[in-house]
Amino acid sequence: MEKVFRDPVHNYITVQNQTIYDLINTAEFQRLRRIKQLGTSSFTFHGAEHSRFSHCMGVYHIAKKITDYFTATYPDRWNPEENLVTQTAALLHDVGHGAYSHTFEGLFGTDHEAVTQEIITSPETEINAVLRQVSPDFPEKVASVISHKYPNRQVVQLISSQIDADRMDYLLRDAYYSGAVYGEFDLTRILRVIIPMENGIAFKANGMHAVEDYLISRYQMYMQVYFHPASRAMEVQLAKLLARAKDLYLKEDSFFKMTSPNLVPFFEQKNQLKDYLALDDGVMNTYFQAWIQHPDPILSDLAASYINRHLLKSVIYHKNDEEQLKVLIDQVAEGGFDPDYYTGLHSNFDLPYDFYRPNSEKPRTQIEILAKDGTLTELSELSPVVASITGTSHGNARFYFPKIMLDKPEFTQYIKNESFFPKEEL
Amino acid sequence: MEKVFRDPVHNYITVQNQTIYDLINTAEFQRLRRIKQLGTSSFTFHGAEHSRFSHCMGVYHIAKKITDYFTATYPDRWNPEENLVTQTAALLHDVGHGAYSHTFEGLFGTDHEAVTQEIITSPETEINAVLRQVSPDFPEKVASVISHKYPNRQVVQLISSQIDADRMDYLLRDAYYSGAVYGEFDLTRILRVIIPMENGIAFKANGMHAVEDYLISRYQMYMQVYFHPASRAMEVQLAKLLARAKDLYLKEDSFFKMTSPNLVPFFEQKNQLKDYLALDDGVMNTYFQAWIQHPDPILSDLAASYINRHLLKSVIYHKNDEEQLKVLIDQVAEGGFDPDYYTGLHSNFDLPYDFYRPNSEKPRTQIEILAKDGTLTELSELSPVVASITGTSHGNARFYFPKIMLDKPEFTQYIKNESFFPKEEL
Amino acid sequence: MEKVFRDPVHNYITVQNQTIYDLINTAEFQRLRRIKQLGTSSFTFHGAEHSRFSHCMGVYHIAKKITDYFTATYPDRWNPEENLVTQTAALLHDVGHGAYSHTFEGLFGTDHEAVTQEIITSPETEINAVLRQVSPDFPEKVASVISHKYPNRQVVQLISSQIDADRMDYLLRDAYYSGAVYGEFDLTRILRVIIPMENGIAFKANGMHAVEDYLISRYQMYMQVYFHPASRAMEVQLAKLLARAKDLYLKEDSFFKMTSPNLVPFFEQKNQLKDYLALDDGVMNTYFQAWIQHPDPILSDLAASYINRHLLKSVIYHKNDEEQLKVLIDQVAEGGFDPDYYTGLHSNFDLPYDFYRPNSEKPRTQIEILAKDGTLTELSELSPVVASITGTSHGNARFYFPKIMLDKPEFTQYIKNESFFPKEEL
Amino acid sequence: MEKVFRDPVHNYITVQNQTIYDLINTAEFQRLRRIKQLGTSSFTFHGAEHSRFSHCMGVYHIAKKITDYFTATYPDRWNPEENLVTQTAALLHDVGHGAYSHTFEGLFGTDHEAVTQEIITSPETEINAVLRQVSPDFPEKVASVISHKYPNRQVVQLISSQIDADRMDYLLRDAYYSGAVYGEFDLTRILRVIIPMENGIAFKANGMHAVEDYLISRYQMYMQVYFHPASRAMEVQLAKLLARAKDLYLKEDSFFKMTSPNLVPFFEQKNQLKDYLALDDGVMNTYFQAWIQHPDPILSDLAASYINRHLLKSVIYHKNDEEQLKVLIDQVAEGGFDPDYYTGLHSNFDLPYDFYRPNSEKPRTQIEILAKDGTLTELSELSPVVASITGTSHGNARFYFPKIMLDKPEFTQYIKNESFFPKEEL
Repeated sequence: MEKVFRDPVHNYITVQNQTIYDLINTAEFQRLRRIKQLGTSSFTFHGAEHSRFSHCMGVYHIAKKITDYFTATYPDRWNPEENLVTQTAALLHDVGHGAYSHTFEGLFGTDHEAVTQEIITSPETEINAVLRQVSPDFPEKVASVISHKYPNRQVVQLISSQIDADRMDYLLRDAYYSGAVYGEFDLTRILRVIIPMENGIAFKANGMHAVEDYLISRYQMYMQVYFHPASRAMEVQLAKLLARAKDLYLKEDSFFKMTSPNLVPFFEQKNQLKDYLALDDGVMNTYFQAWIQHPDPILSDLAASYINRHLLKSVIYHKNDEEQLKVLIDQVAEGGFDPDYYTGLHSNFDLPYDFYRPNSEKPRTQIEILAKDGTLTELSELSPVVASITGTSHGNARFYFPKIMLDKPEFTQYIKNESFFPKEEL
Repeated sequence: MEKVFRDPVHNYITVQNQTIYDLINTAEFQRLRRIKQLGTSSFTFHGAEHSRFSHCMGVYHIAKKITDYFTATYPDRWNPEENLVTQTAALLHDVGHGAYSHTFEGLFGTDHEAVTQEIITSPETEINAVLRQVSPDFPEKVASVISHKYPNRQVVQLISSQIDADRMDYLLRDAYYSGAVYGEFDLTRILRVIIPMENGIAFKANGMHAVEDYLISRYQMYMQVYFHPASRAMEVQLAKLLARAKDLYLKEDSFFKMTSPNLVPFFEQKNQLKDYLALDDGVMNTYFQAWIQHPDPILSDLAASYINRHLLKSVIYHKNDEEQLKVLIDQVAEGGFDPDYYTGLHSNFDLPYDFYRPNSEKPRTQIEILAKDGTLTELSELSPVVASITGTSHGNARFYFPKIMLDKPEFTQYIKNESFFPKEEL
Repeated sequence: MEKVFRDPVHNYITVQNQTIYDLINTAEFQRLRRIKQLGTSSFTFHGAEHSRFSHCMGVYHIAKKITDYFTATYPDRWNPEENLVTQTAALLHDVGHGAYSHTFEGLFGTDHEAVTQEIITSPETEINAVLRQVSPDFPEKVASVISHKYPNRQVVQLISSQIDADRMDYLLRDAYYSGAVYGEFDLTRILRVIIPMENGIAFKANGMHAVEDYLISRYQMYMQVYFHPASRAMEVQLAKLLARAKDLYLKEDSFFKMTSPNLVPFFEQKNQLKDYLALDDGVMNTYFQAWIQHPDPILSDLAASYINRHLLKSVIYHKNDEEQLKVLIDQVAEGGFDPDYYTGLHSNFDLPYDFYRPNSEKPRTQIEILAKDGTLTELSELSPVVASITGTSHGNARFYFPKIMLDKPEFTQYIKNESFFPKEEL
Repeated sequence: MEKVFRDPVHNYITVQNQTIYDLINTAEFQRLRRIKQLGTSSFTFHGAEHSRFSHCMGVYHIAKKITDYFTATYPDRWNPEENLVTQTAALLHDVGHGAYSHTFEGLFGTDHEAVTQEIITSPETEINAVLRQVSPDFPEKVASVISHKYPNRQVVQLISSQIDADRMDYLLRDAYYSGAVYGEFDLTRILRVIIPMENGIAFKANGMHAVEDYLISRYQMYMQVYFHPASRAMEVQLAKLLARAKDLYLKEDSFFKMTSPNLVPFFEQKNQLKDYLALDDGVMNTYFQAWIQHPDPILSDLAASYINRHLLKSVIYHKNDEEQLKVLIDQVAEGGFDPDYYTGLHSNFDLPYDFYRPNSEKPRTQIEILAKDGTLTELSELSPVVASITGTSHGNARFYFPKIMLDKPEFTQYIKNESFFPKEEL
């Protein structure tokens, strides 16, 4: 068999394995069509409306290219029996993502990684049924790749490391759809210098600059796209909206039971896998549109603001000044806005790259460069550019508030260059 | 003021007019973010998940480029006072599109063009309120451009003709998002040879081949993307699904009133503008997901098939053989499927281009090429390639049926090369 | 072994065969770096300065992709022993091209196709030496592919037919370098639907529109790039320049023997292969620059005009009016210009596609589309767009003259819309 | 007037000023068509065969876009009377480049910057004649922009600084033609955030990451394209070839006077402007091809190796080990190669960015970022990525030698990972 999918990023994505094709056709995987890859970012970058479905297809495609290349080029270093588990894990690595996952998880305690595991291993799902046809233990094998416990570190690193099939696809894809050229890097070259090692993967020395460029592209995408203040405004507003609904539900549940049945299990903290799978972006937005009719003026207003994209404004603040923000919060309250729902803090920091630190909380698998004589060197030792973004977080914290506050001099006196300065500093 | 929107097709889209910016921020326009530009095509071309919002932004952008160019280049042929009405009409020309418009209209008698008019002219909408700030008659002016009644034919043709801002954006955009390179054409060149005439627009002779290429690109997009049999399967299934729901509603409405409140006015044929605006792709899909739980096995199955993308299969048939399809339909019935819901006909024909035929039902504004000495010639007279697609429709009619039928020799004996042949012909 | 060449059109071109690599490193092949692919077109499209070297690399690349695909996909239809001869013929098909081949051949009676044969089969060349290492008859085999005499028609058609590796590369490459987007087509798809048949190659029916699009792209490139009047002015001027030099040489050869030694064998019609190989664009231009110092004012002026790109102007004329052009030629003479050197006719016509016509002078191998049931149909029967450009030539004939003539009303009275009209017609 | 040039990098380049158009048509500017932008790099990146002509057109285009934007957007900060001098200086900034400039200058003491000045100011040139038509002092004005002496620092910085029209074009162009995606950056965004200041130009804070990305792209192009070891081999071989010819000329000049007349003034150190302008890539290559026939075996071999691309091989060495290379050089001599001509050192180092250091030899104009409140900050203070490449040189030094040496264990014992290690270190 051979099925072909037209893809604007990778041109054609080819499926020659029946298991892969059957997985794509499961209800759980098709559901990813209804969840945007970038969540609230599409409100800022209107072109970036692509779904997690297309991203997962792309990750599969990159994994297939690598495993095919390893099979043909490194028969003594790579076991072709790992091809299917690698490609399957690539395809399914994000299958547990839900609607507006990050915000949703913060509020309802769900965990998309745990859901991914459950979708793969629970006998209730279509995905599990397909996987079991390969072998009874195949679901567990695939799940263990995604949870990093699979014994073959080559496979694990291809799916999840600082340079893996997931990141390579999302950078190229998000760049393509947002229109951000700085997200591009030389995928073809990276796929030519990647090499299986005894305990993972490495990159040949003549591809060092391509890897360097990939890391810088990733850093640029974080700074310019993923951390955009307008998208984060929408995230803040979404969190406030859901929080308000949850509060109101506890007082009076009938409105929500009628308009938002699939959220009820979450409000009641009784949610099961099937409840999680019943949510997607469209379902959530449908509920939010219904909430505009709710008698509570705050819920109604938050819902309308979200749906119609009326954004809160923001300033950058320094973590040390978080306490001092009270002076602004008080003014928002005086302005007639409940600050619990009309102000918010949003921190976005990313550690673009780090070498392996055995004592850190989440030690990272470092990127290693293979010299001709077989010696391995950690990347930041070779590249001053990479060293400059190694081990340090980048990003900022922002304080969000109603736009109307910008008309008040007593408010804006604390703001300079889009940043908050407590009085004493100015 | 100046606002900039990053767009992957046009790079940056710039808004310098407050009215345009305010229109973008209305609820009715933001709603377009929740409606896919290509409807069911994204089920076939997974990359083509872009919304009508981004298309409308693109049409505005092209209209702005043309009106800016006319203003600077042809002060004696173009009146700059037409700039705003042109750009506004470009932005709003599709604002009345709803969820899965074409299928929906067939079933519920709505008309997205009429809705566009209503959104612009009804005093209830935010869009109308913004337009009235320009002048009391501005809404009517904009609406008349879209309905082709505006006296200035230059403006009308820029918005709606065989080569207009709408088509130019959607071809480029749909090509970019689907990954179909054949949809590309030389927009920059066309924007350099377009010229205002007394009664419309024309194209300078040195750009003739660029216009020719645009028409061929459009033809290719129809043949290869818009008319793809898999997308049409989804359209057929959607029509069947909605029809079944409508039928069931008339018998027993409580389930639908609970799960699908926004469709009720349509089931009852009492729908008003606000009901139409309450629907979008997400709302519809939310309802379809709820319908999977309906006790009617046909509705439940149709809903699940649509949501999970289980496609009907199809063969091409000749219009003359439509009657003869009964032999296949009967077999589908014998196979245990209600043919009213599990078979369907779907015709897709496009007339890629035509010259002006005064006696035709919908006479088209022909494309004219301006020679250096001022003479105008209709395009197909100059281009044999264009002549070959002039005045003739292209496409096919397909008969849809359950996939399982392909396993039966008594069924497939009528099929050769994906086409239906009644017995006598084989 | 594996060598990789970065290529902007195909991304990476990979060489894994030592013979191919050795051929690339021969003097005769490296010489192609010094010959522009598009000759005088780069004077019009300044970006299109690429060489025949890069084109030949691209043709090899496409041939390699096809033969690799055939080997993997059609073991019963394609003999992998043909891979090397196919790839080699692809690489070498243009190796006999010389500086400004077409113009040069018209004047000196050389024939780049014959030279290609000679380079491959003559024991004097490095290329022949490399080929002989494969087997003693390998040079003849490769040469026979290029001369269409090789018994395996599959191989011949991949190298030379109406849709071959040569054309596919030059369309994409010339489009990329000139900036002409209309030259693009869906190479990846074509490479997926091409299929070896018993007597040649065909294309599967589901790729019919991609082939159609390729033919239209080719037609567009001819109309918009290859036949551009400014490039043809340079061709006319080049022909005049070489003709004048040849004439002068016969009268007095010392100047040319000193300044242009490599042309002497051609002036004396004693040229051998080594003389041909000693010419390239740089050598020719070096000579032309020297000729500016020649005492003959016409040669000097023609050389300076060519080197500094002072172009003749032109009008389109109808073949029937060729005689009537005398009225313009006489005026040019009266204006003080020798019409033998300052006027010229230039016809450019292309037959974009044709089906097989057994009685025609050069019968073409038609493009055939393979239906699922195995029937073959000639392309223009299926595609009205292709039919529209089948069997008819497109292009025009132009009359070239000094720019200054455009200032004279008695001259321009015969010109309307860039075309010549003999008096009676106007 | 308006003339349009199709350009694959910038799409269309528009000329609306007669002076600019006349300058393009001068002999000195047309000559740039005959000089490759990247010199020997096209021997490594076969696609990168573009000329200095197309680069200069691109620099003009960027300068025009910036000056048009400044004129429209910053009437109080930018004087539109500077538009023409800026665009002219952009067009002409490289007009003094010659064939293989860098190598040639090292040997013959020419200086392409001085030649640029001379071409602009010498009354002998066509360029000077065109410029004088603007005003008698216009040639001097243009020349002073290029020599950094023009009083308006805005103009000077647009033409020559660490982020100027020249660099922006060559990065994009060299990336496009070589196929190196990492050279791309967001030109459109940079052109939107550039702002004229009292003493130069700056970039608005919201474009900081685009400037950062531009610098990293530049760094990547140096590391991966400009410093490629194979291109440098050709540079070394070219230098050796010219040096040998110069030596031989002093002993016996007749061969060179016959075959290479335009080099004679340089051999005799009597070269004038007209001699310099008579050289281009084609002329040089023509001479080299002639030198293959020279009786001196070294000259003949060096010429053939250059023309046919037989490359020296190389190893990286540390500056401290330069003395120690003698052990390898001696072996080359023992192998029968004159080390003066068959070994060579080649250092390529680039300082990607630096802030202004008043005491440095060549203080650089630093890149400054403008905050909303008007404060300016030097870029590396804001960007750790930029800081990592600030003030430090990147690149390496290589030792070149005949390929055959790699077959000798006594030679390769000093080589590990493509680097030279004197015995004691291994």
